[in-house]
Amino acid sequence: MTALREKQLLEDVVASFDAKDERLQTIVEAATRHLHAFVREVGLTHSEWDAGISFLTAVGQMCTPERQEMVLLSDVLGVSSQMELTSAPSHDEATANTVLGPFYVAGSPWRDEGASILESGDPGPRVIMRGCVRDTAGRPIEGATVDVWQNASNKLYAVQDPQQDPNNLRGRFRTSERGSFSFSTVRPVAYAIPDDGPVGRLLDLVGRHPWRPAHIHFLVTAPGYDPLTTHVFDSDSDYLDSDAVFGVEESLVTTFQAADHQRGALDAEFDFVLLASRDTFRSDREPGT
Amino acid sequence: MTALREKQLLEDVVASFDAKDERLQTIVEAATRHLHAFVREVGLTHSEWDAGISFLTAVGQMCTPERQEMVLLSDVLGVSSQMELTSAPSHDEATANTVLGPFYVAGSPWRDEGASILESGDPGPRVIMRGCVRDTAGRPIEGATVDVWQNASNKLYAVQDPQQDPNNLRGRFRTSERGSFSFSTVRPVAYAIPDDGPVGRLLDLVGRHPWRPAHIHFLVTAPGYDPLTTHVFDSDSDYLDSDAVFGVEESLVTTFQAADHQRGALDAEFDFVLLASRDTFRSDREPGT
Repeated sequence: MTALREKQLLEDVVASFDAKDERLQTIVEAATRHLHAFVREVGLTHSEWDAGISFLTAVGQMCTPERQEMVLLSDVLGVSSQMELTSAPSHDEATANTVLGPFYVAGSPWRDEGASILESGDPGPRVIMRGCVRDTAGRPIEGATVDVWQNASNKLYAVQDPQQDPNNLRGRFRTSERGSFSFSTVRPVAYAIPDDGPVGRLLDLVGRHPWRPAHIHFLVTAPGYDPLTTHVFDSDSDYLDSDAVFGVEESLVTTFQAADHQRGALDAEFDFVLLASRDTFRSDREPGT
Repeated sequence: MTALREKQLLEDVVASFDAKDERLQTIVEAATRHLHAFVREVGLTHSEWDAGISFLTAVGQMCTPERQEMVLLSDVLGVSSQMELTSAPSHDEATANTVLGPFYVAGSPWRDEGASILESGDPGPRVIMRGCVRDTAGRPIEGATVDVWQNASNKLYAVQDPQQDPNNLRGRFRTSERGSFSFSTVRPVAYAIPDDGPVGRLLDLVGRHPWRPAHIHFLVTAPGYDPLTTHVFDSDSDYLDSDAVFGVEESLVTTFQAADHQRGALDAEFDFVLLASRDTFRSDREPGT
């Protein structure tokens, strides 16, 4: 009898929605069905519901223009990565999409091929990063935009750190007619996501650390191709197997190796493969520029 | 291939949880599985995820000590009612539990049988409300606490309205040896839940109104019995079929009828049936007193 009433309640709620926007109707209905199923599946008690309400409220209240705790929650539960996989399904032949992350800032300075993205002093090892942008048939894509950003040796991105030049360790490059790009930088380092808020407390309660392995972010775009948001990870980094936000794909890990040609500098290489745009649907996921 | 990666991602996330508290582990794992399933089921896009993050952030930021927008969201999606049904399954023989709602304030004044709960002027029709508290075998329960609260004719509860005496339209009664209680009051009126925030905007987008049918809240407790949180609805009210928070049960609707014995006053009657406590689990859902 109770199971019947529980089912009837869910159907009443679903029947109450009459959105003009069909897509919104689909999303709200699915969210409602999963929420009710969750409550029934675990037999959520009053005090647990209370704790959940307090937690989500605290997550919302932690948000400021500089910090998006709700995104962080989505990230640490792997929901952001799941959305990336679902909304922009990677093809075996193209480079995998990953989360954009909270440190992307549009409008990085344009730089020449081979230029340094360092604008502030940094004690880290120097790295020459190079690669090519190609289509799935292996043809170079000329004039693609390669937008890069990474953290400094003190673990912070320029956007987090008033001590750094706002343009430090970020820049945009255009690929050559051979599809190539290159720049010099410092080796990125592992860092902890902000863990002094409710999401940090959750991580602690579920026995997890807040660390991400060292990486450089790339946003690669070219007319006629799906935009690619991805990371390149340093194969020597800790936490490759336990990235706090589930961004690591084996195919995105590369080796930073000692280079002969330049004393003390490391060489890293990564080639990106873009997928030709097939539908307008995908344009949806292009980040603001 | 992509479906495999999506599944693997979910399993990686679930495997990352290692909570000391087994119950927390169960809840976080179930929440994560439903979130990922939701994302995959609807094929959530980047801009939809963005809109969802912004909405939940706004809900959290709307919360103040006087207003709990996250509870409101749970209410309008029927999640609060589902939790009440799930955590305190009603038995056919006992009165149905419903949501406590945001206007309950502990510590209402004790009043004598038959007393009025009006402490401020009110133009509404007078009502004599009476009933009995019984166990499932029909035996009266003496000394049960009947804690009542309702809104005034201006639609507001005392806790929302500085013009009302803080004790207006609320009170606690003890049942007599026959299990009976009675009090005089005014007829409650239908009212809209706060709809000037993100939850109101959602209701608008999904084509719903924010109204609740007229009702009186009851919290009935007695040693040895499960606490009963419920409403009694006025059968003449609008919105009985479309309560914004899904609190209506047919069994909780009663008629406010013209009484002969008192000129202009209405009579309403409702008997409550409590379930004997069988396990300590239930004590969990007793609201703060």
